[in-house]
Formats: sequence, C-alpha cells, structure tokens
Amino acid sequence: MITKVAVLLAGCGVNDGSEIHEAVLTLLTLDEAGVEVECFAPDGDQLHVVNHLTHKPVAGEKRNILVESARIARGRVRSIKEASAADFDALILPGGFGAAKNLCNYATEGREADVNTEVSRVVREFIAARKPIGAMCIAPIVVAAVFKGDEKVHPMMTIGSDPSTAADLESFGATHLTCGVKDCVTDVRNRIVSTPAYMLGTGPAEVRLGITKMVDAVLEMAAAR
Amino acid sequence: MITKVAVLLAGCGVNDGSEIHEAVLTLLTLDEAGVEVECFAPDGDQLHVVNHLTHKPVAGEKRNILVESARIARGRVRSIKEASAADFDALILPGGFGAAKNLCNYATEGREADVNTEVSRVVREFIAARKPIGAMCIAPIVVAAVFKGDEKVHPMMTIGSDPSTAADLESFGATHLTCGVKDCVTDVRNRIVSTPAYMLGTGPAEVRLGITKMVDAVLEMAAAR
Repeated sequence: MITKVAVLLAGCGVNDGSEIHEAVLTLLTLDEAGVEVECFAPDGDQLHVVNHLTHKPVAGEKRNILVESARIARGRVRSIKEASAADFDALILPGGFGAAKNLCNYATEGREADVNTEVSRVVREFIAARKPIGAMCIAPIVVAAVFKGDEKVHPMMTIGSDPSTAADLESFGATHLTCGVKDCVTDVRNRIVSTPAYMLGTGPAEVRLGITKMVDAVLEMAAAR
Repeated sequence: MITKVAVLLAGCGVNDGSEIHEAVLTLLTLDEAGVEVECFAPDGDQLHVVNHLTHKPVAGEKRNILVESARIARGRVRSIKEASAADFDALILPGGFGAAKNLCNYATEGREADVNTEVSRVVREFIAARKPIGAMCIAPIVVAAVFKGDEKVHPMMTIGSDPSTAADLESFGATHLTCGVKDCVTDVRNRIVSTPAYMLGTGPAEVRLGITKMVDAVLEMAAAR
C-alpha cells in the first residue's frame, strides 16, 4: 500500500509563509518515493505580507494563507479543517516564518505562543495515533508549542544551533539537540523527525540532503507501524 | 572556474508567475552542480494576479514581478535591466504562465506577441555571444518570439506535445520537436536546450528528470566554449 502523507503549508514565501525551497523539496522527495501527498493550510489571513526584496512588511495588504499556499501546491491544497490523521500515515511541516506566524504566534509571542486550534488538533491526532511527524527549520517550534508543559510527550528535536530559539523550544518542554543542515534528529519515542533546513542552510543542495534524510526516516517509521 | 548562470524569473506561481517547482528544481540542480547563480526578473506589474485555488484573476489586485520573484529567490533577485550576458556563462528560463504573461504577451496576443524589451535584449546577447540558453515549459515561446522572422536563428525547441502551442511556436520561425517530460531537446547550432516540464509533467519527480537533463546539457555546452 502506498503511504499517504499530509503536508502542512503556511503561505508562500520564507518571510511571511512557507519557505518555498523547503516545501518543494519535501514534495519532490515524497513524489520520488512514490508517496501520495495532500497539502493543507489554515484558511485565514496571514499575520502580514512581507516584501521579500526589502524584507519589510507591506502596510495594509492582506493575503489568505490557504490561497497563497495554493501557489506552492499548484492549486491542490485544502483547509486544515478537512485534515484528519485517520486518512494519513504521516504529517510533514515545512518551515519558513509562516510556521511561526500563521500556524502559531511564536513570531510575536515567543514563549507565550499559542498554536492555531486546527493545527494543534491535527498534530495531537498524529501523535495520539503514533503516526510520524516530520518538521524542518522553525516548524519544530509549532509541534513543541502544541505540547507545552505536557510531560508525557516531551519531544526531542532540532532547530539547528541557534541558542535563543533552542532555549525557547526547551521552554515548551522539549529537549533540543544541535544538528547540522545535512542531518536530522529522530525522536523514536514520539516518532518526530526534525532537520534544520534553512535555519542553517545556505542553498537548496545542502538543505535537500537533510530534508531527504528526514523524509526517509518518516516514511520508514510510517511503513514499520 | 565555476560556471555562473543567470535564471530569469517572472513572478511566483504557475498561473501568474514562474512555476514554483520548475524554478526551485532549476536552482537545486545548479546548486548541486556547484554553479554560481543570479536571479533576475522584470521590475514592473504582473499582467494580473490569479487566485491559485480558484484559478480566477483577482479584480483590482496588483503585484510586482520582481518583488514576487524574490519569494522564490529568497530575496536575491535583481532587475533584468542589470543583467548582461557578459557576466554569465548561460541563461535559464523556468516556465509557468508568467513567462507568457510577464516576459512577453503571448498569453493575450498569441502569434502577435511582443517580448519585454529588456528580456529581448538579454536573450539576444546570450545568442550573439554563443552562450547556451535553457528554457522549460512554455518559456521556449519567449525565446522563439524574440527571433520572430529571423531566418538566421531559426531555433529548434520543444514545448512538449500540445499541437496548438507547437504551431504558434513554429509561426515564430522555430521548428518544434515533440519531447517527453523526462527528456530535453538540444539545438546544437543555437545552443538552446528545452524540456516540457509541467507542460506535460504530473509531479515534481518526473519534471525534475527533464530539468536535470536540460541543465546538464546547458552546463556542458557552457564548459565547452
């Protein structure tokens, strides 16, 4: 049976949505593995719109997370409200600031971050079903924030090597492991695999190495269930 | 000496800009080959903005081609006005409707299409310098339109197998060859390599095969100069 994987997007562009290279390299690796993929995203306004040339927010402009995610998914993306862990073997979260701005509010609230209700529901469903989750770049923050203060889960993850982000991750009850861009960290107990991607990467070739390792580990765990 | 390649973007999203998978897979293949890359795009309004979920144009919304291209290029993209063939060993054009809407007006004018003045200048510079050009998906139309009626160039290219688009390409004086998604067509005389990509492809894995062959052929010709 072909493994079916849900990919959770957060817009289209590193500064206000999903990091585009990370999302495409995830879709590429899953497609090369012959895996069926469905993309999901929250149906609501982005926190803001950032001009990716100046890196400054654009005053007054609004964009919808789901509609912008459709650019990466070539139109094939559904509202996160329609996602259920029962329909999938694994969940993967690409990074980009959108993970910290549109899936949770870590970008503005830091250690007081809340997670989007539907995103939280879906992540909890996968963990409860013992189905693996892959997360890259800043996205492990989303998973950690879901289980803030939950001693039963206590995930082990990487966001690369940035001390301040790692400390924030640990404030949510996770354990942080430093990891290089070409590698990934596997939390066997919770079935969570993470890789730093563009938290450390300088180009798509090296980012791809870590993403491929992460996706392979996720698919292996999904197949072993 | 490391080969330096210019990549010409046309926005961010298959329906109104550059096809995102094609652009990222081009950047990935070039990065894996150790090639230095600079991205360029026209600095002007997109023809329109398309909602990629409904595939319908959004009334009244404007987006700038260069600013949206910066999403794919992670901020590192310059105006096409600053591009000169003298600084590069090759030029590659990803596809997406943006190539037919923002680099030329083929999408609205068909066989009467004109090419953006700066895009035309840059393409002519590469051909005049005998430096290779790679084009995928609908982008061969841009190159063909530049040399409309110029019997000296008469390029040989593919846009896959769509008879109507192929006939339009030939109306510009090019010869069209049918080609599968996993392959590419090489015009040795003009040093133009083309691959159908998402004109035929159904997912990133097979699209990548043709893009890799095309990029490899372009780099080989660039190295042989």
